[in-house]
Amino acid sequence: MANSKYEYVKKSELDDRLPQYNWIVVRIDGCHFKRFTSDHEFEKPNDECGLNLMNSCATAMFENFPDIVFAYGVSDEYSFIWKETTEFYERRESKLLSLSVSFFTSAYVMNWKKFFPQKELKSRPYFDGRVVCYPKSWMIKDYLSWRQADCHINNQYNTCFWMLVKTGKTVGEAQEILKGTHKEEKNDLLFDNYSINYNELPAMFRKGSSIYRERVEETVKLDDNGEPIKRSRTKVIVGHVDIIGDQFWKKHPCILKEK
Amino acid sequence: MANSKYEYVKKSELDDRLPQYNWIVVRIDGCHFKRFTSDHEFEKPNDECGLNLMNSCATAMFENFPDIVFAYGVSDEYSFIWKETTEFYERRESKLLSLSVSFFTSAYVMNWKKFFPQKELKSRPYFDGRVVCYPKSWMIKDYLSWRQADCHINNQYNTCFWMLVKTGKTVGEAQEILKGTHKEEKNDLLFDNYSINYNELPAMFRKGSSIYRERVEETVKLDDNGEPIKRSRTKVIVGHVDIIGDQFWKKHPCILKEK
Amino acid sequence: MANSKYEYVKKSELDDRLPQYNWIVVRIDGCHFKRFTSDHEFEKPNDECGLNLMNSCATAMFENFPDIVFAYGVSDEYSFIWKETTEFYERRESKLLSLSVSFFTSAYVMNWKKFFPQKELKSRPYFDGRVVCYPKSWMIKDYLSWRQADCHINNQYNTCFWMLVKTGKTVGEAQEILKGTHKEEKNDLLFDNYSINYNELPAMFRKGSSIYRERVEETVKLDDNGEPIKRSRTKVIVGHVDIIGDQFWKKHPCILKEK
Amino acid sequence: MANSKYEYVKKSELDDRLPQYNWIVVRIDGCHFKRFTSDHEFEKPNDECGLNLMNSCATAMFENFPDIVFAYGVSDEYSFIWKETTEFYERRESKLLSLSVSFFTSAYVMNWKKFFPQKELKSRPYFDGRVVCYPKSWMIKDYLSWRQADCHINNQYNTCFWMLVKTGKTVGEAQEILKGTHKEEKNDLLFDNYSINYNELPAMFRKGSSIYRERVEETVKLDDNGEPIKRSRTKVIVGHVDIIGDQFWKKHPCILKEK
Repeated sequence: MANSKYEYVKKSELDDRLPQYNWIVVRIDGCHFKRFTSDHEFEKPNDECGLNLMNSCATAMFENFPDIVFAYGVSDEYSFIWKETTEFYERRESKLLSLSVSFFTSAYVMNWKKFFPQKELKSRPYFDGRVVCYPKSWMIKDYLSWRQADCHINNQYNTCFWMLVKTGKTVGEAQEILKGTHKEEKNDLLFDNYSINYNELPAMFRKGSSIYRERVEETVKLDDNGEPIKRSRTKVIVGHVDIIGDQFWKKHPCILKEK
Repeated sequence: MANSKYEYVKKSELDDRLPQYNWIVVRIDGCHFKRFTSDHEFEKPNDECGLNLMNSCATAMFENFPDIVFAYGVSDEYSFIWKETTEFYERRESKLLSLSVSFFTSAYVMNWKKFFPQKELKSRPYFDGRVVCYPKSWMIKDYLSWRQADCHINNQYNTCFWMLVKTGKTVGEAQEILKGTHKEEKNDLLFDNYSINYNELPAMFRKGSSIYRERVEETVKLDDNGEPIKRSRTKVIVGHVDIIGDQFWKKHPCILKEK
Repeated sequence: MANSKYEYVKKSELDDRLPQYNWIVVRIDGCHFKRFTSDHEFEKPNDECGLNLMNSCATAMFENFPDIVFAYGVSDEYSFIWKETTEFYERRESKLLSLSVSFFTSAYVMNWKKFFPQKELKSRPYFDGRVVCYPKSWMIKDYLSWRQADCHINNQYNTCFWMLVKTGKTVGEAQEILKGTHKEEKNDLLFDNYSINYNELPAMFRKGSSIYRERVEETVKLDDNGEPIKRSRTKVIVGHVDIIGDQFWKKHPCILKEK
Repeated sequence: MANSKYEYVKKSELDDRLPQYNWIVVRIDGCHFKRFTSDHEFEKPNDECGLNLMNSCATAMFENFPDIVFAYGVSDEYSFIWKETTEFYERRESKLLSLSVSFFTSAYVMNWKKFFPQKELKSRPYFDGRVVCYPKSWMIKDYLSWRQADCHINNQYNTCFWMLVKTGKTVGEAQEILKGTHKEEKNDLLFDNYSINYNELPAMFRKGSSIYRERVEETVKLDDNGEPIKRSRTKVIVGHVDIIGDQFWKKHPCILKEK
């Protein structure tokens, strides 16, 4: 049974290699996670175990895909930055997208028990994903600033919203109260009514999670004189820091270094 | 913190809606499954539990994505045919691809225990995927014929190869013996040396698995006279049949019906 | 001076082959033709010489590009339908687009003198173009119906508009009078005020121009008995007929015949 | 006649806006120019009038499309560099391509008489075109180096080839003599046999033509004391200089300046 007469169908497969010397963002986003988190009784507005589970999957991505240089996560979304010169699967978009989202999903289901030992998975968690190219590293900084600014806006709103709802307001009332309020008014609302200082909430909630590699020196053993023998190695760091300002990037110039 | 100054980065997201009135194939393929199946001691050349696990994930896809009209699976790969008029997520390629591959992966990990109750998952199974459009339904038939012909060629080769290896040949010797052999010679090799009639091997191994919906009549209860009250409903069928010839398609004209 | 160190830049050239078995439309459109036709004192609303010049260029396209099976032109626009199986330059979009629009432009400038012997070309006529794929022949019919319906709507409006302007109304007044009028009201306006029966205006103005090939029998010479010797050959026809209804397509089934 | 039922066909028009902050190259190339130049008896290997005609069209492009910042031409090809931030027609690829190639073609036919007053245009000159994006300005320099290195290689070969043919060798003999020769050998061949010093041939033949804008100071009139009143204005320059080395770009840092 020769297969050749059907092989012409392969010609319909498009060449989807992403353009050279562009930074590549793969953003993953929980699908129907409003329902998924409600089914699994996630803490609102932020479930620490849920976020740590997301971070564990993102960290696993760094181990599996060495060309990822930075990742930023907030809520049920995670953005992975691939270096501009990656040749992973010839930069084919469908490979980058499908392997990223599939690996992340696999890690999410497999790591679940570790972060929620008391909860059974009742429904299938799954994610959508997209790929975006940026020709310049300063655009990647703007991209990440966009996500972190969004994190701030959403988290501040959600913190207020859930405090109002937990203390007796209906969903509609809470929305009405918050409509059109500014940053300062929201902070005041939290402080005046609930004695919450927004800036003292956990950094992971306010800043999201940033993952990157850092060279660290570690003592591997002591020599005969009891002096430490150090070795430099690469470590994956999960931080909750400001990435909108220049400070972080000045401290880590290698992450987004251009050719 | 206004987010608007960074929002220009959204303009780099491309419009990836697939062309109208094209049939859409999403093909999912196990990544590094040679190693994964070896780590998990899958039966060679075909592991029935492994194939049934794949089929259970594909069946779940039918429940979750109603616009999938047909699926064909073999080994660690599965092709899903979306109807030509689907408007799922506006036909956006990245949504179709990422949601399909993520849902399938999630199902694979979650269903594992059911099909391999004795085996712990030792490593993360994950899949790549791709999307291909076909403008005509006869091209979809050719696409499926291409996959089923491939299934036949590979399965016949692998059946011979693993019989040789299991009976003492080295990998190199087995490859040498099979080099350049024709269909008939492979069948003879199986029959003469191992008394295996290739055509009597399980259809799932030889023909792969085809999934589709069928309207069936079912007795829901008996009426007062003891006569059966029947109701017609749609059922998802998993079959292992020939889909290269016309017979199957003549029997199921609705599956690939064009506007 | 080896060139190889720079050749990597070629990798940025994308593969732009159009999908198999799709009908291809190349639509060409005059750029800044409002100004161009005014500079060259074209008759309003329709300049017969200008339209004939357009038709002469489109006819030349048929001679130069044998895979064009149909063309439809109106005003300063022309649509060319390439057969679904064309392999012209491997179906590369940029080749199809640039060669079509460049050849058409070249013909327009070179043929100008023939259609406007008294007028000097004062500025450079040029055209934009676009490529659209359609997977089914019935969509091509709908595409052409869209253009011919548009021709009708525009021509009827313009005929009224220019009659009003030529008989003393300002542009603003004419627009005001026509605002929201229906087909019948426009016909009445023309008949009542100017004794113009819209349906008796030249078909080229009302229906646009359709170009296609037809097999015709022609007498090439007489035999010894004075009987005509006929030969069948392909002729390019320019017609001004209805292509929205089925009649034309039933009479010319070969034009859009699918594999 | 409502047009709305056909308007769905517009949905098949793809969004072809080129990615933000990329430099855009539109390269135009004569189609069947081997035959066209032979039909019109162009001087070989370089026809000065023909090249000047090409340069006149490219210069007209600068006037018509202000976002073109640089152009490089050799033989029957011309590359136009559009600035990375151009918003011309929303950066739509088909607009940029079709308008460029159409305008160039129009200029070529209209300018013909000026450069070839004795020669009638016998056939339609036309061009193909393509669009390529480059994310970094250093890639544009490499792109232009690629073209100029190609110019040198071809011109040196062609100069030798045509001298051999003009002095009695057949085409085959000339090709045989040149096969595998190096740069120096070709220069020696020209010098030893024809007393031609390659480096003294016209720069336009050896270096191609580079077009760009420069701010120049010009005396517009004299003041009452007879002192010149100068005004700075932008002028389009056609030069034949080395653009592979850094010198040109250091002298003109504005041309490829990035945001």
